[in-house]
Amino acid sequence: MRPQGVRSILAIASGKGGVGKSTVSSNLAVALAKQGRRVGLLDADIYGPSQPRMMGVNKRPASPDGKIIEPLHAHGVTMMSIGLMLEPDKAVVWRGPMLMGALQQMMSQVRWGELDVLIVDLPPGTGDVQLTLCQKSAPTGAIVVSTPQDVALIDARRAMDMFKTLKTPVLGLIENMSTFHCPKCGHEAHIFGHGGVEAEAETLGLPFLGALPIDLDTRLAGDGGTPIAAGEGPIAQAYAQLADRLVQGGIA
Amino acid sequence: MRPQGVRSILAIASGKGGVGKSTVSSNLAVALAKQGRRVGLLDADIYGPSQPRMMGVNKRPASPDGKIIEPLHAHGVTMMSIGLMLEPDKAVVWRGPMLMGALQQMMSQVRWGELDVLIVDLPPGTGDVQLTLCQKSAPTGAIVVSTPQDVALIDARRAMDMFKTLKTPVLGLIENMSTFHCPKCGHEAHIFGHGGVEAEAETLGLPFLGALPIDLDTRLAGDGGTPIAAGEGPIAQAYAQLADRLVQGGIA
Repeated sequence: MRPQGVRSILAIASGKGGVGKSTVSSNLAVALAKQGRRVGLLDADIYGPSQPRMMGVNKRPASPDGKIIEPLHAHGVTMMSIGLMLEPDKAVVWRGPMLMGALQQMMSQVRWGELDVLIVDLPPGTGDVQLTLCQKSAPTGAIVVSTPQDVALIDARRAMDMFKTLKTPVLGLIENMSTFHCPKCGHEAHIFGHGGVEAEAETLGLPFLGALPIDLDTRLAGDGGTPIAAGEGPIAQAYAQLADRLVQGGIA
Repeated sequence: MRPQGVRSILAIASGKGGVGKSTVSSNLAVALAKQGRRVGLLDADIYGPSQPRMMGVNKRPASPDGKIIEPLHAHGVTMMSIGLMLEPDKAVVWRGPMLMGALQQMMSQVRWGELDVLIVDLPPGTGDVQLTLCQKSAPTGAIVVSTPQDVALIDARRAMDMFKTLKTPVLGLIENMSTFHCPKCGHEAHIFGHGGVEAEAETLGLPFLGALPIDLDTRLAGDGGTPIAAGEGPIAQAYAQLADRLVQGGIA
């Protein structure tokens, strides 16, 4: 089920939802594209496909022959999202076999072309989509995103245990929403804690790939359809460094 | 599958994960118990069961006859969580039928006793657990929790559409992480936006049940096992008001 022409598949995962997995996925994709990599972004978060909004794309993908689906393009990234195939505001009550069918379709029927890396934005948790991806597409590795508070780390551990069971290497951990800098006085608040993910990475002997702040501009950029990594500034730089690291490591 | 002796079942739902659904569930349960209601809390968030941590309970539930499971008790609330049945740090790759079996077990084999209301903390999204609950247990209604930003509201709409399809009344919407007050200078930052959920409720003609801030003390209380509603202060008061409203409405 690994698309032909795709050199590397990188899964972006989390245990808990709402930790910024989609934000990290889109920004990392854009940062890699800025460095000249050929990047695909597959939004497999069936329950909350955020990439059409975050990448500013809401066209229905064309399929002239009714079989091969043409991906869309935004900010230098080739992309596809389950959200583009659904009616807006309508719920799909996804049962297991439907989930697997949708993922397989997005993997094998989309004309991904030649890619250095395909980033897969997974749903949170440890369910059918993760299982199918790991068993059928043999991802090069997974990056686990977590916020630092205990209730998020508990779930992140479960996700990492799942990847271990499925023999998908965990390439490292990212701490998101690590600090909040008050835009008025600069005070640094640790709303969701701080440092928990780095400590966890150390305990597990896994690489710690960096900490990203909880940041109003990042959220506004995502809601606005242009990931913050497309511009300049400290957050864009943090993503550029993360991208660098993956390129150096031969992952992307 | 509705447990005998349970007068009302209240589902706490969200589209997107990480919007604070579990925090709202535990605090609402505690606030209702403080008002003398007999309250149960069923943590059905298979992918991220946070209630053992948030309620400060981590004993394995007893089952002397191997059939009936004794619930646990904390802060005046009778509770059960899928997290108490799992090994910590171990992933369970839940497939659809397992999900439904686990939910049914927690509904029908737990000795819930006489309850005015059973609060069910659902997983995010629109999947097997939601479907099974609505079809088998006929909840009195659902409350949808969302943060105000666009990517969260998109998913919340899908969740509400699901409840409509399943004929479960949506009793109202709660805006969580509405504002952040800098602990140093008091500056009010709208990290995840502000007012979006109230506007959405108005559009849909549904009750807006209130806005809760993004708050360090709330998070610390949750990580520490004593929901902030168990104490005094403005957040506890907000939950008391919400509890009042549900009691007045005959829901709890």
